[in-house]
Amino acid sequence: MEPQSRHIIAEFSGCSEDILNSADRIREIIVRAVVIAECEVKKVAIQSYKPQGISGVVVLAESHLSIHTWPENGYAAVDIFACGSSAKPEKACDYIAQCLNAGEKYVSVIHRGEIKGEKENSFKHSFETPVTSGL
Amino acid sequence: MEPQSRHIIAEFSGCSEDILNSADRIREIIVRAVVIAECEVKKVAIQSYKPQGISGVVVLAESHLSIHTWPENGYAAVDIFACGSSAKPEKACDYIAQCLNAGEKYVSVIHRGEIKGEKENSFKHSFETPVTSGL
Repeated sequence: MEPQSRHIIAEFSGCSEDILNSADRIREIIVRAVVIAECEVKKVAIQSYKPQGISGVVVLAESHLSIHTWPENGYAAVDIFACGSSAKPEKACDYIAQCLNAGEKYVSVIHRGEIKGEKENSFKHSFETPVTSGL
Repeated sequence: MEPQSRHIIAEFSGCSEDILNSADRIREIIVRAVVIAECEVKKVAIQSYKPQGISGVVVLAESHLSIHTWPENGYAAVDIFACGSSAKPEKACDYIAQCLNAGEKYVSVIHRGEIKGEKENSFKHSFETPVTSGL
C-alpha cells in the first residue's frame, strides 16, 4: 500500500442528540461507512463517556475512521484517513453526515504521505478543496 | 468536556524501519505518548499488516491518538486530537518523533470543535502554525 493518502476532516453540527449518544448506533454507522468507502475493517473501538458523548474508531486496512461526539452540542468531529486509490472516503463522510442528521458540515481534505523530493509539496497540509458548508 | 479541540497532524520521514514494524514498540510509544500529553487512555487498538506496517490507535478521554507506519518508506503518519485545555499534544508529538528517530517532520495544528456563530472561524481548518520541518 502506498503511503500517499487522503485525510478527510469533518465537523458536523445540528446533529440528532440521541444518535450522537448511542454507542450502538455510532458503531453501526461507522462500520457501514467503512463499507461505503470501499475500505476494510480491521478493528473497532467504541467508548462511551459520562454524562454523555461517544468516541468510535475503526482501524482500517487503509488507515482509520474516527468519530467523537458531543451530544449536548449536537456536534461530531469525523476523520477518515484512507490510503490507496480505490478508497472512497468522501462517500463515507456524506453517509455519516446523513445518518447524524447534520444541519451544518465543514469538510476539508488534506494529503498525507511520505516526505521526500518532489512529493514534498504534498506535505504542506494545504487543503485539497475549500471548506464546504451546509448539506 | 468542551468540544473545542486541537488536532496535531504530523508526517515523520527517515524513521527507523525496525521500530516502525514492531507492534509491541509502537504500542509502548503511543501509550507513553498519551501519558506525556497528560491525557487518559481508554482503549488501545494495534494492527499489523503484511508484508509490513503497523496501525495503532489510542482512544482517549480527550479524543484519540493514531499512528500509521510504512516501514519500507521510513514514514509514519501521526494524529493527536485532544480536547480540553490541559492536554499537551505537542509534547506527545515530539516524543513520538524522537522514539521513531524521525529525520524529517512536518507538523501542523488545526482547530476542531462545535460549529456556531462566532466560533465559526475556528472551523475553517486553517492551520494554527506554519508547517515545521526538521528536528
